Amino acid sequence: MRVLVPFDARDPKTGLASVLDDAERRAFADAMLADVLETLAVAGHDARVLATAPVECVAPVTVDERPLTPAVNAALADAELPLAVVMADLALLTPAALTRLVEPDADVVIAPGIGGGTNALVVRHPGFRVDYHGASYRDHRERAADCRASLATVDSFRLAADVDDPSDFVELLLHGEGRARDWLREAGFEVVASDGRMTARRRDDTD
Amino acid sequence: MRVLVPFDARDPKTGLASVLDDAERRAFADAMLADVLETLAVAGHDARVLATAPVECVAPVTVDERPLTPAVNAALADAELPLAVVMADLALLTPAALTRLVEPDADVVIAPGIGGGTNALVVRHPGFRVDYHGASYRDHRERAADCRASLATVDSFRLAADVDDPSDFVELLLHGEGRARDWLREAGFEVVASDGRMTARRRDDTD
Repeated sequence: MRVLVPFDARDPKTGLASVLDDAERRAFADAMLADVLETLAVAGHDARVLATAPVECVAPVTVDERPLTPAVNAALADAELPLAVVMADLALLTPAALTRLVEPDADVVIAPGIGGGTNALVVRHPGFRVDYHGASYRDHRERAADCRASLATVDSFRLAADVDDPSDFVELLLHGEGRARDWLREAGFEVVASDGRMTARRRDDTD
Repeated sequence: MRVLVPFDARDPKTGLASVLDDAERRAFADAMLADVLETLAVAGHDARVLATAPVECVAPVTVDERPLTPAVNAALADAELPLAVVMADLALLTPAALTRLVEPDADVVIAPGIGGGTNALVVRHPGFRVDYHGASYRDHRERAADCRASLATVDSFRLAADVDDPSDFVELLLHGEGRARDWLREAGFEVVASDGRMTARRRDDTD
């Protein structure tokens, strides 16, 4: 399937600024993008990166400086359908998770993210447009209903676990297998026990 | 399948003590347990609650005052296999998610939780024992390897999203359908936009 991978090439992963400096955020974001593109290629999909600035990667790149929502909607308006939209920070993505995304025979397929976002979408209905602001999972369900598109939701932890926030590092360290996991380890992050759930911390952090 | 549902009937959901008082935590934990038991019944499974004290619910209850790990291991030692162990705080559980849990033909099937825990297990190997302390997902993988049990992992957001922490309320408010979701709504919790991800807050909270 044709897959669009939006990527912020200017100021990526601002949610990680409390634990990674600018150069680190960019390197980590690049590693996640490379993992996502490799997984898409292994699964036989036809990926194109939709970036806010030129970026070096293995897939063709379309540069669109607009925010995420208008840039993706412009691509949807131009694209031959079906088109999938897969976020560049799905560092736990596997070919099996992608299979579960493209499998449902629905006009719109949504993979919700932790915290109410939309981490991956398949669009087969020409009237559907995205709005990534706020609780986009709920909004996208409503928009699918508004244009009478049939809807399916994919129940996948690997599609739900985007890496936006330092609290997400624990998932990547425990379940990841690619460059992004290796980058985090080499940067000194490790899983530690805390009250209840595990968390990730950097070895050279002062407490 | 026989399913064991461990439940802390004495001091449930201590991770929610910052937002719910003792009586509220107990009522909310009871609502989640009732949802989990109803979903198991709808899916045709044979549930038994393993509780630290007597509890009123629709399933038979075994009282074992010991901590989670020795109590579950005592049950595993006595049980006819296969036996599933499903946590009582999986408030997003659906029959479809349960089907995905029991489907893999492996000696041990693990559904990891957010934060490294083990939210659901199927045990078909008589040598396997649990250890819920710390990063139990990783430990359970190692224990399966140690007893040469074949292993499968289930990729499910609904099985990963336990409700341990106030940050989990947003998932329940967005994706839940049962008593626990209704209880949270009636207690005044709602989804609000924050930077990036959505969060849940109580309407009568002072900021």
